[in-house]
Amino acid sequence: MTPGEPRVGILMGSASDHAVMAEAGKVLDELGVAYEMTVASAHRTPDRVDAFVKAAETKGIRVLVAGAGGAAHLAGVLASKTTMPVIAVPLASSPLAGFDALLSSVQMPPGIPVATVSVGPWGARNAAILAAQILATADAGLRERLAAYRKKLAAGVEKAAAEVEAKRTV
Amino acid sequence: MTPGEPRVGILMGSASDHAVMAEAGKVLDELGVAYEMTVASAHRTPDRVDAFVKAAETKGIRVLVAGAGGAAHLAGVLASKTTMPVIAVPLASSPLAGFDALLSSVQMPPGIPVATVSVGPWGARNAAILAAQILATADAGLRERLAAYRKKLAAGVEKAAAEVEAKRTV
Amino acid sequence: MTPGEPRVGILMGSASDHAVMAEAGKVLDELGVAYEMTVASAHRTPDRVDAFVKAAETKGIRVLVAGAGGAAHLAGVLASKTTMPVIAVPLASSPLAGFDALLSSVQMPPGIPVATVSVGPWGARNAAILAAQILATADAGLRERLAAYRKKLAAGVEKAAAEVEAKRTV
Amino acid sequence: MTPGEPRVGILMGSASDHAVMAEAGKVLDELGVAYEMTVASAHRTPDRVDAFVKAAETKGIRVLVAGAGGAAHLAGVLASKTTMPVIAVPLASSPLAGFDALLSSVQMPPGIPVATVSVGPWGARNAAILAAQILATADAGLRERLAAYRKKLAAGVEKAAAEVEAKRTV
Amino acid sequence: MTPGEPRVGILMGSASDHAVMAEAGKVLDELGVAYEMTVASAHRTPDRVDAFVKAAETKGIRVLVAGAGGAAHLAGVLASKTTMPVIAVPLASSPLAGFDALLSSVQMPPGIPVATVSVGPWGARNAAILAAQILATADAGLRERLAAYRKKLAAGVEKAAAEVEAKRTV
Amino acid sequence: MTPGEPRVGILMGSASDHAVMAEAGKVLDELGVAYEMTVASAHRTPDRVDAFVKAAETKGIRVLVAGAGGAAHLAGVLASKTTMPVIAVPLASSPLAGFDALLSSVQMPPGIPVATVSVGPWGARNAAILAAQILATADAGLRERLAAYRKKLAAGVEKAAAEVEAKRTV
Amino acid sequence: MTPGEPRVGILMGSASDHAVMAEAGKVLDELGVAYEMTVASAHRTPDRVDAFVKAAETKGIRVLVAGAGGAAHLAGVLASKTTMPVIAVPLASSPLAGFDALLSSVQMPPGIPVATVSVGPWGARNAAILAAQILATADAGLRERLAAYRKKLAAGVEKAAAEVEAKRTV
Amino acid sequence: MTPGEPRVGILMGSASDHAVMAEAGKVLDELGVAYEMTVASAHRTPDRVDAFVKAAETKGIRVLVAGAGGAAHLAGVLASKTTMPVIAVPLASSPLAGFDALLSSVQMPPGIPVATVSVGPWGARNAAILAAQILATADAGLRERLAAYRKKLAAGVEKAAAEVEAKRTV
Repeated sequence: MTPGEPRVGILMGSASDHAVMAEAGKVLDELGVAYEMTVASAHRTPDRVDAFVKAAETKGIRVLVAGAGGAAHLAGVLASKTTMPVIAVPLASSPLAGFDALLSSVQMPPGIPVATVSVGPWGARNAAILAAQILATADAGLRERLAAYRKKLAAGVEKAAAEVEAKRTV
Repeated sequence: MTPGEPRVGILMGSASDHAVMAEAGKVLDELGVAYEMTVASAHRTPDRVDAFVKAAETKGIRVLVAGAGGAAHLAGVLASKTTMPVIAVPLASSPLAGFDALLSSVQMPPGIPVATVSVGPWGARNAAILAAQILATADAGLRERLAAYRKKLAAGVEKAAAEVEAKRTV
Repeated sequence: MTPGEPRVGILMGSASDHAVMAEAGKVLDELGVAYEMTVASAHRTPDRVDAFVKAAETKGIRVLVAGAGGAAHLAGVLASKTTMPVIAVPLASSPLAGFDALLSSVQMPPGIPVATVSVGPWGARNAAILAAQILATADAGLRERLAAYRKKLAAGVEKAAAEVEAKRTV
Repeated sequence: MTPGEPRVGILMGSASDHAVMAEAGKVLDELGVAYEMTVASAHRTPDRVDAFVKAAETKGIRVLVAGAGGAAHLAGVLASKTTMPVIAVPLASSPLAGFDALLSSVQMPPGIPVATVSVGPWGARNAAILAAQILATADAGLRERLAAYRKKLAAGVEKAAAEVEAKRTV
Repeated sequence: MTPGEPRVGILMGSASDHAVMAEAGKVLDELGVAYEMTVASAHRTPDRVDAFVKAAETKGIRVLVAGAGGAAHLAGVLASKTTMPVIAVPLASSPLAGFDALLSSVQMPPGIPVATVSVGPWGARNAAILAAQILATADAGLRERLAAYRKKLAAGVEKAAAEVEAKRTV
Repeated sequence: MTPGEPRVGILMGSASDHAVMAEAGKVLDELGVAYEMTVASAHRTPDRVDAFVKAAETKGIRVLVAGAGGAAHLAGVLASKTTMPVIAVPLASSPLAGFDALLSSVQMPPGIPVATVSVGPWGARNAAILAAQILATADAGLRERLAAYRKKLAAGVEKAAAEVEAKRTV
Repeated sequence: MTPGEPRVGILMGSASDHAVMAEAGKVLDELGVAYEMTVASAHRTPDRVDAFVKAAETKGIRVLVAGAGGAAHLAGVLASKTTMPVIAVPLASSPLAGFDALLSSVQMPPGIPVATVSVGPWGARNAAILAAQILATADAGLRERLAAYRKKLAAGVEKAAAEVEAKRTV
Repeated sequence: MTPGEPRVGILMGSASDHAVMAEAGKVLDELGVAYEMTVASAHRTPDRVDAFVKAAETKGIRVLVAGAGGAAHLAGVLASKTTMPVIAVPLASSPLAGFDALLSSVQMPPGIPVATVSVGPWGARNAAILAAQILATADAGLRERLAAYRKKLAAGVEKAAAEVEAKRTV
């Protein structure tokens, strides 16, 4: 766990979202970005969501990440209460395969944006990277760590390429 | 306008939704159900939405109706703050033809229902009728007015049938 | 099982829907609302559906709940025969993942509303809560039980939050 | 208008569907198949629909055609009350572009089929041809008229081909 | 297996469709309708499809049923070569869950209808019933068997209802 | 019109598709690729489609392009009768906005590919370019003309960029 | 036009996207954020896109915004070449109503996020606000201007509310 | 493995796509078409993709095949850098079942076509066949091998037909 004051606040609508959203935490740890993560439901605990946003602003949190499925209102509700950037991770937790969470997250009316990333685990990882990219607009050290992370991704592709090519020649 | 204390509170997310949502008002007037109607955006004016819900409970309002398009969170946000029945009218105001508003309204997580009706003007009228049906569970007079309204609808179909049959025989 | 005259009538289109729709019954029991539940298919047993509606009105039932999949007409057919509120639970029982049942339930023509809730098990629970909310418009005791239920949901979120936060610090 | 006892009964859910459904009538006239056409709403006039089906069986009607939009239950309701073949024409009359009417018509549960054709005016014409094809399984004269109709369609394509080729060489 | 000359010809595009399409055969056997069933791909064996249609007309087959997935052209290709009624069963054999097969089957251009039924196994059963309904327009004995089949379906629902009600009272 | 033996054969299912498909012809003329274009419906004129394919092979045509809407089977039917590359242009001519034509074109079963391009006019132009790219695999002169065409496209973007930037500084 | 070094770079794939994307520029001007805007197509001018990204980093640009329709790859291509935050505005410029641009923008693989906002003009405005929110994580003055902008939005809702309420009482 | 200079270059965006894309290799081997296959991500390794395209042109590769899921940009990025034909295989690797990859691949703007085939394993096989069909426009021997392959497919259908017919008569 990265020490220091949290810069990113991660919320999820239900404990069942933790397996996916924990991916976001791992990536932030890898990038050396301190964060806090908890559960709050926009619908079942609106006051808890309010309290979270207010506390976030006083703690120095600069970016929020919200993972939710179905009629995924969590990111939009956060965005209605702060001018910090809010990132939505739509989760595929209903029978409608995540189309519901995607449209509920991204189609915000003019004035209150939500930065939406991919549905499911891809999105949990990408939300963490995007949060770091946002913080890196004013943090040269983090920009360097992001560049290194990008190189590591490229190296992974090259390793996979070598493996696929090797299978081929057999 | 039906006199008396309002029993239904109608909200819409934007003034541009008024042309559609006014249909709901006309139907309630026809059914003799007093209501109030205003604009409040879940995203741009969350405090106004809160205040509306709190006032509604003290005024004797028993059912809420919310019309919104895109990532239509208004009904869900209302439902998170009251145990009154909340009816959503998904509006087709974005390029995605109302699929976004429909999924954002209906796919509520377990615990906090939203009663969703048809997309667009059909839904505005149906929200009013549904609100009246809810109030009529404890109001025999209103049940009679609903039965009369139903007969009027049937008479309209019969008139249309006669016209179509007449065209045919020409 | 809650004693007393049933206030809610729950129908499902097929015995295979019982596993999901039983959730609605559990929630009504928890909220102290008497109900009855049976199977009737709008397509295979239209007369049984008619008889159910007529009996419901004489028994004091005030709200109907219908669970069905595919071309889910059950709620609409009920609504065509009563002015009681009818709630639809769209079920994901065909290969089309519930999109068919959702659109078949919600897109009712003007005049005959159906109150549609989420697809699948989330919807079964929410239909029960919505039915209770409707009855509670004229039942202060039930309003209190709904408020208590809402608190229990919030407590569940707080417990989940504590668990997720604990995992984090390990 | 083709004289004689009607063999096909055409219903539509609303007078506003007449412009599209009239296409079905024209095609039946062209094929020399007697029919009757009227308006009946499954939701607003369920008794009228019942009466129509019962009368149809006594009049010698052998095939039913139903045009409806939105949550298009009309064909399914007819099919629940007769074992005659029932053809559905899904209409694009809601903002959801006919996806709702298509899924509501075609996804019938096992036991009660509805023969669904294309959305909108293509479907109105095709419903009439399909009705004639069904009657033609026991009517050699009609089979010949259908073969002639098919040739006329082919001739229309060849004429169009000549026009397109002519434009080309200009 | 029902003896006698086949009245229904069932095609499927691939051997892997047999498990689903065999349902159609079982229902026809139950209804006492003779049929034949084979595999022919519109894309891989267009000549085989042609030969099947020509032979069908000479053998006294009156209705065709085609089961296919993906870009399901089989029913449309059959329909382009005969004026017999052609019924399509869209199969969910690609990752797109049957939406592709449904739209490829139902959206036929004006002039050449395909009678489309539900996606997957529901549709296989319904195609058989619809084929029997078509033949029954000129076969009073088959109409009676269809009426008996309908009663059996209703009895199944009533049995299921009794079981669900029994669970309830436990 | 480019002189010489045609190398590309363009079919469309209906004369009403000509306005869109003419775009393909313009692009081929611009690239100096001879082609022929006509109307043939897979469903209304299957023999005409057969004859077209057979003639195409003897005339030296190397690539086929098919534009069709709705249940767009034309490209698939062509592909079932030749091993030449077949390109599909899905057209948005039904109420379902081209989703039907896209899925009907692209989701071909294993063994018989169709090369599908964008829905509508974008696709008509792209089909022509793709046909030229295919021919250019064995035609160095055409490769050069394609490279020049690509440069012209880039120049168009640069001109547009200058205009947008100019508006900006006003 | 806000003076000073640009902090936001806005790209669009085609000149025809300018009418929508100009909305983003207006909002940035209103928020006092300097930007530059031009046209570059990921597909027709990949080198121009490369050059734009490289120049952006040297000019002090901190956030990129990309508006594109259809297979909207522009934002993803930008994101592959920088670790700056990239915001996508999916445009509804093809017949598929923006579903194509939305999915092409948002569903980025793990490692390379794109922050996607609403389809069409709502999204153009929201992209600008989101870009300002990102810059405001390190700019207290901009945070204040965003707070003021938010208040203006709320005031607009209140004005609309007054108008709607006034219509009501007439 | 087919000896000789590769004529087809196959790329996939991730090692996890290898199981599906290996099908393309098997088909090319069966058709006697030399190819090379490797991994390169448009987003994580844009330079590797560039290098691959440039090398492909010098090695005599004439057709490219790209398999990718989610926001599948790989084929479009390749197409932006060459005028060789580029074939896309949309993969169903995200929760959205391949709808995202399909729309991201096929909806290319005018000027830069991508030849899109079926989603998933069907598409991997079809991409290989389409690549061979393209090369065969200038290779009579390959045309013969494709004709033989087509016959083998037909023989497979006939064998399946015999098996299904045999089951039937039992």
